[in-house]
Amino acid sequence: MARSSGRLPTQLRKIQMQINVNKHAEGSCLIKCGDTHVMCTATVEDKVPRWVKDTGAGWVTAEYGMLPRSTSSRMDRESKKGQVGRTHEIQRLIGRSLRAGMDLKAIDGFQIKIDCDVIQADGGTRTASITGGFVALYLACQKLHQEGRIKHFPIKDFIAAISCGIVNGHVVLDLDYEEDSIAGTDANFVMNAKGQLIEIQGTAEHAPFSPAELQELLSLAQSGVDELIALQKKAVGK
Amino acid sequence: MARSSGRLPTQLRKIQMQINVNKHAEGSCLIKCGDTHVMCTATVEDKVPRWVKDTGAGWVTAEYGMLPRSTSSRMDRESKKGQVGRTHEIQRLIGRSLRAGMDLKAIDGFQIKIDCDVIQADGGTRTASITGGFVALYLACQKLHQEGRIKHFPIKDFIAAISCGIVNGHVVLDLDYEEDSIAGTDANFVMNAKGQLIEIQGTAEHAPFSPAELQELLSLAQSGVDELIALQKKAVGK
Amino acid sequence: MARSSGRLPTQLRKIQMQINVNKHAEGSCLIKCGDTHVMCTATVEDKVPRWVKDTGAGWVTAEYGMLPRSTSSRMDRESKKGQVGRTHEIQRLIGRSLRAGMDLKAIDGFQIKIDCDVIQADGGTRTASITGGFVALYLACQKLHQEGRIKHFPIKDFIAAISCGIVNGHVVLDLDYEEDSIAGTDANFVMNAKGQLIEIQGTAEHAPFSPAELQELLSLAQSGVDELIALQKKAVGK
Amino acid sequence: MARSSGRLPTQLRKIQMQINVNKHAEGSCLIKCGDTHVMCTATVEDKVPRWVKDTGAGWVTAEYGMLPRSTSSRMDRESKKGQVGRTHEIQRLIGRSLRAGMDLKAIDGFQIKIDCDVIQADGGTRTASITGGFVALYLACQKLHQEGRIKHFPIKDFIAAISCGIVNGHVVLDLDYEEDSIAGTDANFVMNAKGQLIEIQGTAEHAPFSPAELQELLSLAQSGVDELIALQKKAVGK
Amino acid sequence: MARSSGRLPTQLRKIQMQINVNKHAEGSCLIKCGDTHVMCTATVEDKVPRWVKDTGAGWVTAEYGMLPRSTSSRMDRESKKGQVGRTHEIQRLIGRSLRAGMDLKAIDGFQIKIDCDVIQADGGTRTASITGGFVALYLACQKLHQEGRIKHFPIKDFIAAISCGIVNGHVVLDLDYEEDSIAGTDANFVMNAKGQLIEIQGTAEHAPFSPAELQELLSLAQSGVDELIALQKKAVGK
Amino acid sequence: MARSSGRLPTQLRKIQMQINVNKHAEGSCLIKCGDTHVMCTATVEDKVPRWVKDTGAGWVTAEYGMLPRSTSSRMDRESKKGQVGRTHEIQRLIGRSLRAGMDLKAIDGFQIKIDCDVIQADGGTRTASITGGFVALYLACQKLHQEGRIKHFPIKDFIAAISCGIVNGHVVLDLDYEEDSIAGTDANFVMNAKGQLIEIQGTAEHAPFSPAELQELLSLAQSGVDELIALQKKAVGK
Repeated sequence: MARSSGRLPTQLRKIQMQINVNKHAEGSCLIKCGDTHVMCTATVEDKVPRWVKDTGAGWVTAEYGMLPRSTSSRMDRESKKGQVGRTHEIQRLIGRSLRAGMDLKAIDGFQIKIDCDVIQADGGTRTASITGGFVALYLACQKLHQEGRIKHFPIKDFIAAISCGIVNGHVVLDLDYEEDSIAGTDANFVMNAKGQLIEIQGTAEHAPFSPAELQELLSLAQSGVDELIALQKKAVGK
Repeated sequence: MARSSGRLPTQLRKIQMQINVNKHAEGSCLIKCGDTHVMCTATVEDKVPRWVKDTGAGWVTAEYGMLPRSTSSRMDRESKKGQVGRTHEIQRLIGRSLRAGMDLKAIDGFQIKIDCDVIQADGGTRTASITGGFVALYLACQKLHQEGRIKHFPIKDFIAAISCGIVNGHVVLDLDYEEDSIAGTDANFVMNAKGQLIEIQGTAEHAPFSPAELQELLSLAQSGVDELIALQKKAVGK
Repeated sequence: MARSSGRLPTQLRKIQMQINVNKHAEGSCLIKCGDTHVMCTATVEDKVPRWVKDTGAGWVTAEYGMLPRSTSSRMDRESKKGQVGRTHEIQRLIGRSLRAGMDLKAIDGFQIKIDCDVIQADGGTRTASITGGFVALYLACQKLHQEGRIKHFPIKDFIAAISCGIVNGHVVLDLDYEEDSIAGTDANFVMNAKGQLIEIQGTAEHAPFSPAELQELLSLAQSGVDELIALQKKAVGK
Repeated sequence: MARSSGRLPTQLRKIQMQINVNKHAEGSCLIKCGDTHVMCTATVEDKVPRWVKDTGAGWVTAEYGMLPRSTSSRMDRESKKGQVGRTHEIQRLIGRSLRAGMDLKAIDGFQIKIDCDVIQADGGTRTASITGGFVALYLACQKLHQEGRIKHFPIKDFIAAISCGIVNGHVVLDLDYEEDSIAGTDANFVMNAKGQLIEIQGTAEHAPFSPAELQELLSLAQSGVDELIALQKKAVGK
Repeated sequence: MARSSGRLPTQLRKIQMQINVNKHAEGSCLIKCGDTHVMCTATVEDKVPRWVKDTGAGWVTAEYGMLPRSTSSRMDRESKKGQVGRTHEIQRLIGRSLRAGMDLKAIDGFQIKIDCDVIQADGGTRTASITGGFVALYLACQKLHQEGRIKHFPIKDFIAAISCGIVNGHVVLDLDYEEDSIAGTDANFVMNAKGQLIEIQGTAEHAPFSPAELQELLSLAQSGVDELIALQKKAVGK
Repeated sequence: MARSSGRLPTQLRKIQMQINVNKHAEGSCLIKCGDTHVMCTATVEDKVPRWVKDTGAGWVTAEYGMLPRSTSSRMDRESKKGQVGRTHEIQRLIGRSLRAGMDLKAIDGFQIKIDCDVIQADGGTRTASITGGFVALYLACQKLHQEGRIKHFPIKDFIAAISCGIVNGHVVLDLDYEEDSIAGTDANFVMNAKGQLIEIQGTAEHAPFSPAELQELLSLAQSGVDELIALQKKAVGK
């Protein structure tokens, strides 16, 4: 089987993570996964949401957006029509995933907002947002720590995310838009550096999948996440 | 380990499915999973959404709501504040799950809308909605078929859903609200009668989970779904 | 003249009031008036709206909703399109009516919210909501009083509501949907146990009505409200 | 008993109806009822709403608004916050009332929209809107008829509206804002020239009212409506 | 060249400013510029917006609206569809312009809201709103000052506004709707009594304009503003 | 006088225009004016808005947005709160300006949408959007022409925009955010290659400005626009 991109089934797209690309943000990362480009910025706020107040912990949340022409056909701007269901779903996923890497008690009194804005889309925007958003979060935490505003460095674990899928009957890593459109099953995995799962979302788009296939997808995801975490560490200089 | 409800780890709550509880709907099922009660109705429409037109197929979609006092603390009505992200996420999940059991070509020209309204909530409202919504869908299809409006019976497969989780370090089936609140990991499984997966959503609420734990959750879910599908078949008289 | 239901002109539909049907609410009543079924729940809140603050009184308010398929043709969900004018009008009427039975000073510092959600509709949903909502309100007041959170029992008067109309030239009580659709005049009466009026809303749908006809409608309403109040008293065990 | 305005219990405020005050509208009337001033304009449209299509009839509808500083304390603009419940309720009432004076078949294919905008408010804005709106509607019908766009003059009956109430235990006609604020009961009557009722809305604001009091309010309203219809006829030159 | 109205190129329409036309407002002016009629009211509030707090100054803001049938074709009500871009743009302009005439420190602790509602439109509604709104603002300041609520009279400068344009190649003052529709260039000038500019907004609707033409438009505007300020002074009795 | 950036009063910031930066759009330009970065994309649609239909012409429109952390303090996302007035005002300005350079008849049947999304802001985002948006528009027109979908190349004139202002009493070109915050007067000029004006918007932020000062601002703007148009021509290879 050949992938239209010429990639091996186990091969990621070309990944780039440029840091400190925004002069205002406390942390920022422009992540490029092939033709999927996401601008991730971290904003540190001195106040926490209502439900975190007086719990001795801080909070991390995320928002997600797409530029209207990030996609092949122009989408209507969400500022005109309101946020659609998919946006809500994705930003909740990003937030949960990033919090899993944090010791929230170490940022007591602070909220860190991660904005993930898709500049150009070619499949995998939610996983790129998690992987790139984690880098922006890491840099903002580093800044807080270096400035002495927090005592303990709050990152517990590196977190990255990748998609796998069953395309033409074959299990492949890191689907681009074309592959995503024809995949029988599409699954997103959020994992940490120890190979543990933070989140798994698998959907049978066209055909149900067996427990054995789930196992194959998971193994492939683990190898992809390992590579991504190595790149994250390099990007933040660790 | 003892569950607060006295249930065994592998034991479902008491399940009831009352059919034809709504005089207007083409199909209806009031499903009770312990103290979680969801009213599911099916509405058959003679037109399909724009993106299905001229594809030779029909469509199934779902909407989800909660009565304001279905929960322990009263929630604001979504008709006043707009649908929140969680609602969007759940109704997309229900729709995808139900479509996986259908031969959509067999309902060419029709859209079936499944409304799942939570009358009382005690955990597991989205899985109850899928399981009960499927019964309403089945009955509506039966009616369409008996009236000769469609030629082939469109149900390909029975579909049901259940949650599993890791509570106090133990893997348990069908979490109620109290267990859900303290679960380290919470996962929802949508499966068919052959033991295949339609959707899996697992989230590490408090602690990452290992691939081995994922396997345990999956086995437990399979046994739960088997029981639910048996009850669905009984409810629809098959 | 024969009513399609076989009822006498002065005859109510079969009325049922099931109390404590919701495990979370401070008071609840599922009222069934023939095929019109409304779930009424009462929620007690420890704070009052802005305009009641520091007046030495509490407040009672109501919200009204319909499940999408409570009606013969499915309605769009108000959480998607916003509340329509009819909803606003009805919930303002329910709130005003229920407050007329209360000594609001006796619940100083509390707001009681009555949610009336129509599970199935067959005409007369607003009057059923008032009659059933009053029962839920009564039970919540009883609970507040029994728990010693208020000193004086705040219910001054039993309140119930019923519709009358002129159908095919005849004055009839408690219109169902079919009668409502063809009525020349339709009027709703909210009254107390002494036969006094709290609210009257009469509309000439197809033909103006005379002062003499108004008098006839009023007499019929009085007999209907008497019956309903007897049933309310029985339901709350008084 | 003396009214603060010095009016007799049976006395209307000073009423003025200025017609053709808007150069664009097909009919217009600036009605002044004491310090309550409402600008009423009629717009004729060549198309009817969806539910009237192919019924052989036209339609009349109404919209209602208040300038932000028409009231003693400035209100927020509804264009910023959306229409509130009271607005929906009033414009539905105006529309129903005006349609009761029309032979809708005579305006087949046309919709007439009556806009009632309160320039200054001092109680009774909804009844002034109906009375003044009817004049604007009459003039628009006259124009349609004179231009030969419709064959039969569509006005069946003159329609006017007035409020009555029980203030300090006395039944009085045409309440101003001050009286309205302290009234025990407040009722609005929409009637035709034959003394028949189109709509009655009575509310016990502070104390329930008896059937006998309802009768008194109704008699007073009849005399007020008679006066108003005489003024309407004068205004339109009939 | 002849203007369709018969006016000279340098001639304003007939201008009227009626003051104190609203019994509730702290200041009011109904300005008529030919067939353009705008009701301007001033509301004094005892609190300032968030961004002014603790700056030692008060604030002036404006809102703008049009009655649905103020225009030749009826417009949809903004309370139904939300405020459109043009409304936002105009009310920001009115607010900025009025603030330019004020010593905001002299109204420390107060916000004055100017509502400009177009009763009838025939071109130039935004400039009429500024000119008439200034009169309402002046009267409200006078009232505050006379009642001793502020120490110093806060008006620094009279402010008025007028449009000029290039119509059929000729530079003309104070365009009405018909001229505005065919103008090649349309410009609005806000100026003070000293001939200084507060705001200039020039738009080439159909053809770019030269710096020399801009100079001509500006001279014409200055003469128009001089006339308007003389009328404002007369209206407020200065 | 020294500018904090060290620039001469007549000196633009460093300008970069990168073209074809988006693989999906029909034309694109990432414009950088110092630290202000705007992504401009052009989308060609095969249909025109309602008001252009059957006029023998096409249309050009623009939308504008800012990423939440494009600014020094993070802004709320407009998809959550709706578009604010400033956004409406800016996108209307961009659209008008771009249309001034077009022969709209030459794109009969097409609408070109220019999206201007601010990636990073440091003053002058609206003028950068016009200048960069024009480049994206030019490229999209070129593509339409080269593909033979239109007969005549529709660009009539190059259009660019720049701000000038009076800062500390000195007239300076191309204000950055810091200068903009303290400017007494701020003006935006949209001009063509012949030195003609398309749009002028001048606002006295803190002090009125004289006709003579307006003249100075205009001269400076002309020199700035000349430079920008030279860069646009270079970018599109003309």
